[in-house]
Amino acid sequence: MEQTGFTIWFTGLSGAGKTTLARLLEPELQARGYKVEVLDGDIIRTNLSKGLGFSKEDRDTNIRRIGFVCDLLARNDVIAIAAAISPYKEVRDELRDSLRNFVEVYVECPIPVLAERDVKGLYKKALAGEIKNFTGIDDPYEAPENPEIIAHSDSETPEQSLAKILAKLEEMQLIAASKIDAANAN
Amino acid sequence: MEQTGFTIWFTGLSGAGKTTLARLLEPELQARGYKVEVLDGDIIRTNLSKGLGFSKEDRDTNIRRIGFVCDLLARNDVIAIAAAISPYKEVRDELRDSLRNFVEVYVECPIPVLAERDVKGLYKKALAGEIKNFTGIDDPYEAPENPEIIAHSDSETPEQSLAKILAKLEEMQLIAASKIDAANAN
Repeated sequence: MEQTGFTIWFTGLSGAGKTTLARLLEPELQARGYKVEVLDGDIIRTNLSKGLGFSKEDRDTNIRRIGFVCDLLARNDVIAIAAAISPYKEVRDELRDSLRNFVEVYVECPIPVLAERDVKGLYKKALAGEIKNFTGIDDPYEAPENPEIIAHSDSETPEQSLAKILAKLEEMQLIAASKIDAANAN
Repeated sequence: MEQTGFTIWFTGLSGAGKTTLARLLEPELQARGYKVEVLDGDIIRTNLSKGLGFSKEDRDTNIRRIGFVCDLLARNDVIAIAAAISPYKEVRDELRDSLRNFVEVYVECPIPVLAERDVKGLYKKALAGEIKNFTGIDDPYEAPENPEIIAHSDSETPEQSLAKILAKLEEMQLIAASKIDAANAN
């Protein structure tokens, strides 16, 4: 199969479901014959960005590094999936301009819902002031204005969001239509 | 062509010819149908390691980051070519153990020859004490004990070194024998 690499960029608040969706999408694309790498924010912080903090400058540096690696992969016909809070619009738009085929997925979830779920207990600590510079609490999150896809993780199941993402990638002709879709179309 | 990715790691002193050889090797492999990325030490310092200095710890961190990216590429069937001083043996051996198919090329050149060439004027400054922590002058370089290939850049032309590298990669069956070689063999 002729493959053209591209980057799928999941942005959203902590706990919104970025990594969950990235990890669901990965095997789905692999099953269709594509090469895929997931660049998860936490993994990248360990391997490429240890020492960086959570100032705007350091966050932007971290995002540019993930973008640099996505570009290396995408230009070698790999689908790069990034999952990182990436709170600042300007640096996301910079990546949109510099990378080929940048597909932005906004994983949207209201803060009260996230604080209620609070899987890692981070919102409780941030609201109590025990963690500083926590995105959405005392640090900004600039939502995308025109993302290719919005996943509403408070009202959709992960599988529903996944279906939307795959449909959009097919519509953009970044991936081939699945055999089931093709069969239905005939 | 079925491709298996691997990493070619050029190590050696500043000015020894690592980047020159990497940039000669790149089109040669591409002409044989392989996907190739060159990860040059300077490019990586700009894009992945800004803020790191030249202490042993920071140098090792830089090398591990290059190794992390080489691994991402190699496991997606890309030939990753790294060109970085990488002065410490321990971290190079760590990469040898953790990456698949790690081919070490020691680009060897005596310091007096490098100081005489001094293309970037760095040896003059380092010998005058104007640059600190300069590898080979006032910072250590631990030569590889068992590299797959040694390129003697004081006595071989770059083309001769390139031929040695290609022959070794063929011998290791990491790349297919070139058509000319194959024709001669028949």
